[in-house]
Amino acid sequence: MMSKTYIFGHKSPDTDSITSSLVMADLETKLGNDVLACRLGSLNKETEYVLNYFDIEAPELIEKIEDEQQVILVDHNSPSESIDNIENAKILKVVDHHKIAFETSYPLFVRTEPVGCTETVLLKLYKENGLTPDKTIASLMLSAIISDTLLLKSPTTTEDDKDAVKELAEIAEIDYESYGLEMLKAGTDLSSFSIEEILSLDAKQIDFKDVKSIVNQVNTADIADVMEMKDDLEAGMEKIIEEEELDLFMLLITDIVNSNSQVIALGKDAALVEKAYGVKLADNTVLLEGVVSRKKQVVPIMTENA
Amino acid sequence: MMSKTYIFGHKSPDTDSITSSLVMADLETKLGNDVLACRLGSLNKETEYVLNYFDIEAPELIEKIEDEQQVILVDHNSPSESIDNIENAKILKVVDHHKIAFETSYPLFVRTEPVGCTETVLLKLYKENGLTPDKTIASLMLSAIISDTLLLKSPTTTEDDKDAVKELAEIAEIDYESYGLEMLKAGTDLSSFSIEEILSLDAKQIDFKDVKSIVNQVNTADIADVMEMKDDLEAGMEKIIEEEELDLFMLLITDIVNSNSQVIALGKDAALVEKAYGVKLADNTVLLEGVVSRKKQVVPIMTENA
Repeated sequence: MMSKTYIFGHKSPDTDSITSSLVMADLETKLGNDVLACRLGSLNKETEYVLNYFDIEAPELIEKIEDEQQVILVDHNSPSESIDNIENAKILKVVDHHKIAFETSYPLFVRTEPVGCTETVLLKLYKENGLTPDKTIASLMLSAIISDTLLLKSPTTTEDDKDAVKELAEIAEIDYESYGLEMLKAGTDLSSFSIEEILSLDAKQIDFKDVKSIVNQVNTADIADVMEMKDDLEAGMEKIIEEEELDLFMLLITDIVNSNSQVIALGKDAALVEKAYGVKLADNTVLLEGVVSRKKQVVPIMTENA
Repeated sequence: MMSKTYIFGHKSPDTDSITSSLVMADLETKLGNDVLACRLGSLNKETEYVLNYFDIEAPELIEKIEDEQQVILVDHNSPSESIDNIENAKILKVVDHHKIAFETSYPLFVRTEPVGCTETVLLKLYKENGLTPDKTIASLMLSAIISDTLLLKSPTTTEDDKDAVKELAEIAEIDYESYGLEMLKAGTDLSSFSIEEILSLDAKQIDFKDVKSIVNQVNTADIADVMEMKDDLEAGMEKIIEEEELDLFMLLITDIVNSNSQVIALGKDAALVEKAYGVKLADNTVLLEGVVSRKKQVVPIMTENA
């Protein structure tokens, strides 16, 4: 007997990862497939706000999968961002908007596009199958695009994302700008988090060539607020660097109102940040003007300079 | 000034690789993009038959590309099957039906499906963009699906491929069964080829884990005909094994009428064939009953047993 196909986004899930899992599960169910929406970690504050707002249950938390488990990956494809034993899974489909960083020994359905959010691709899949997302699903999709594109202001934003937001806002009957700002602000509330939690909220393991790194991004409406914790954050980062044998830990504190990021860089390859952006770290930190997108403004430039 | 985007299929091109390049170029042109259909090698007999039949010019032969050249890959994604300096290219899109075997440092459009032929995916792309292939383009697409699926008899054949053939045959106004058999037979004519040419006609470099291999497939209507050249074929294979430092050279002589393959296996890891299929090579050769698909019946089982 074949069990359900598990659908999940990346570790340290954000709003796109959680909602893509729910939305893809809706689409697959409508297509007659037996699936279960899953997640690989705790909800962040922003996603909690979204699920509460629309009264939706979170996907099921899973920690490992059986050998040969059939899975669908959304919002990620790299094994380093997936469930620990992903190499034992049978990947049926991938729907994503990131660089390609996985291999298979078999052909499969892969749909990636260089757009701001997985949901923008998922909206196309609904249409291609002659379907329309219902009001609740559209609300989730809309939330994720606002989250990933910082209200369509991030340089990752494409015309497809803008069109999708307009279309989804109409189905969802939501004033997306006021809703979106409230949602983003909810995501910046760090008050209930320990330092360890802040450092893992949106942490991605990324190797810039041979430089083994973690890049963690924390959104805020006020950089100074977060920088008050600088000493504690650095101590926490040093601990993770040692435990994970990292060459670099970059913490991006991203001002979602003014679209800048304060970076704290630690590790033996911290100077890579200076080389990549032509800046000087002072006391391990520097403001990167206009930098808000890890995918578009950090990964390529750091990789190129590594 | 940005030059045209080059579109090409894999090295040692087959009918799918050549026609996918032409068909994708048609689609991209209709979408307003400036592209050039290219190919990475000589036409095989089958593809020559197809292009002559419909009076179509072959894509432009290219041997290398400039740094940063924008490219679209069809019918392949692995760098080992692509143009030699593919790592310097900017890959805009991939449309394919093979396993995933490439990496990027940037997000891109990827569309792969586990179907029998790239053209089956391309037909979906036409529809998703509100377009229909014209009669000539439909004829090319139809030819490639017949070629890749051996007239819908290969185990790689899916319902999508069958539906596509029906739809395309109607647009093309072709009796696809009689046309298809003639086309496949044209592809089995080896009379004008040297041994070196036969051994490179449809050769793919594939590593089964650490076993560095070439798997070459030659279609025939009569295995005995080809086996008359066995001594010369083996001498040629030994030469390539030495030059390329291969661990294994598998030559599949595939009977397209009865759906079997005679395999000749040479190299220090030839016994992998025995292990994978539970057979004994006699004088380096054995008949693999029912095996016609390199992708579905060779690559996975050889990889698993390596």
